[in-house]
Amino acid sequence: MTPPHPAPSLGRVALLGVGLIGSSLARVLRREGMASSIVANARTQATRDKVMELGLADAVFADPAEAADGADVIVLCTPLGAYVDLVTAIAPRLKPGAIVTDVGSVKHAVVRELAPLIPAGVHLVPAHPVAGTEHSGPEAGFADLFQGRWCILTPEQGTDAAATAKIAAMWKRAGSLVEIMDARHHDLVLAVTSHLPHLIAFNIVGVAADLELVTESEVIKYSAGGFRDFTRIAASDPVMWRDIFLANREAVLEMLGRFNEDLARLQRAIRWGDGETLRDLFTRTRRIRREIVDAGQANSGKP
Amino acid sequence: MTPPHPAPSLGRVALLGVGLIGSSLARVLRREGMASSIVANARTQATRDKVMELGLADAVFADPAEAADGADVIVLCTPLGAYVDLVTAIAPRLKPGAIVTDVGSVKHAVVRELAPLIPAGVHLVPAHPVAGTEHSGPEAGFADLFQGRWCILTPEQGTDAAATAKIAAMWKRAGSLVEIMDARHHDLVLAVTSHLPHLIAFNIVGVAADLELVTESEVIKYSAGGFRDFTRIAASDPVMWRDIFLANREAVLEMLGRFNEDLARLQRAIRWGDGETLRDLFTRTRRIRREIVDAGQANSGKP
Repeated sequence: MTPPHPAPSLGRVALLGVGLIGSSLARVLRREGMASSIVANARTQATRDKVMELGLADAVFADPAEAADGADVIVLCTPLGAYVDLVTAIAPRLKPGAIVTDVGSVKHAVVRELAPLIPAGVHLVPAHPVAGTEHSGPEAGFADLFQGRWCILTPEQGTDAAATAKIAAMWKRAGSLVEIMDARHHDLVLAVTSHLPHLIAFNIVGVAADLELVTESEVIKYSAGGFRDFTRIAASDPVMWRDIFLANREAVLEMLGRFNEDLARLQRAIRWGDGETLRDLFTRTRRIRREIVDAGQANSGKP
Repeated sequence: MTPPHPAPSLGRVALLGVGLIGSSLARVLRREGMASSIVANARTQATRDKVMELGLADAVFADPAEAADGADVIVLCTPLGAYVDLVTAIAPRLKPGAIVTDVGSVKHAVVRELAPLIPAGVHLVPAHPVAGTEHSGPEAGFADLFQGRWCILTPEQGTDAAATAKIAAMWKRAGSLVEIMDARHHDLVLAVTSHLPHLIAFNIVGVAADLELVTESEVIKYSAGGFRDFTRIAASDPVMWRDIFLANREAVLEMLGRFNEDLARLQRAIRWGDGETLRDLFTRTRRIRREIVDAGQANSGKP
């Protein structure tokens, strides 16, 4: 399973936030021996206790600045809405040459807001491992989460090449396929492959919960007909997803506009009994599934 | 794995259509020894050859009337749009006491159209096993497809109780949980748990395929972020699904109306930065997922 990429020496790594992604990354760092030490920051005492109990870090702090103090690599692993406060808090403690990176699902808004907060001599290398499950928290993580998945880096022009290479090497060692992309383009690609699907899933599950003529227990009983696939997505972390939609507003609204236009056409086809339109679309969509299976991206990657 | 329900003696069973569901049922009938003989009808020579090669039936016919001739139980396993022609063709050959049943995903429209075509003395027991995968054809079936899934029967008032009991016993022996339901109510329940999710999935995959700024290969590469779950659903059989939407038009349009209203609210919340509305919904939907997991309906049931 271990990929043939050399493990980078990352030095002291600070994980700010230890949920599904942060704890999975901690497990990878341990497995691959990439960090000389791992320190973590978590808001609640319960999470801090869990982090130590699971052996995910050598030390854990309530104060992010203490965790970042003297760290060589700082990874933001919280919901996007916490980034600005976090980086404001740690900025005075960042040492020259340190790398600040993250794992967030939106990149352009993040780079725009964080870049001015980063001290001179500190490198910002935004990253997004496109992997996840519907589970949250430090116990939900596992080292193979990133295996075979893409990780997208969106460094601004002029970013230190060695810093970018180090973060790329970390993700390759985690089993990921690494791609460098423009931050705005990333946000558009993710709006259609991830954010819009989640929004639709949240919405359809909400619709089902509010019906009067069909009971919630009926919805649950007969969910194997398709609905349950949406509920898995709609079980993802509420705060994380709130922050994603707010941060990637423009691209999500653009994709939603297209979605609504196309749905109106389907609605009309159903109302007027236009079977050709329906069948044509359904035949096209089937082909796309085949291509995803062929590309090795069809399985959930859960253990 | 074998449930503690007695296997009914079904006599000669005719399967009209041998796709995913028909071939899975054939495998169950064989495994449980419920049929004295199994005959099948398939439109194409290729499918008829495959049915014999896989040993799914004792005989296979191009003409549905020949397959139904002398059968004790006739199961319609084709897309809904073929039902009327099929039953018109077989009606003159149905013997008194025979049971006509089906496996279709829409019930009210079906009962309304088929009932007048069924000769006196022949029983109509509509059924819907709520199970499936995105694969089609006789090779895609497997005997455990129905294990732990619900099967809904929608006999009209006055239907022979022994006929209904026999079909119920068949599905229980297949591992299903059987429920009797009003046909109209079935169509409403399935509109929300299955038909609307499929329509949405077909639509979102279509949107992704039509983008200019994001390439199809990017959509496929990064599909692990949520999109791929939709593509699985959107890979289901195009003709089957065309027929479902046309047959259950009223209930699907009703659910789609609610979906659109709620989506407009989310769209507005994103545009105006209303994080509370988003977070509240996402918290509610997470709970429903937990209930589906608790109800044992979370796994795909694929082998």
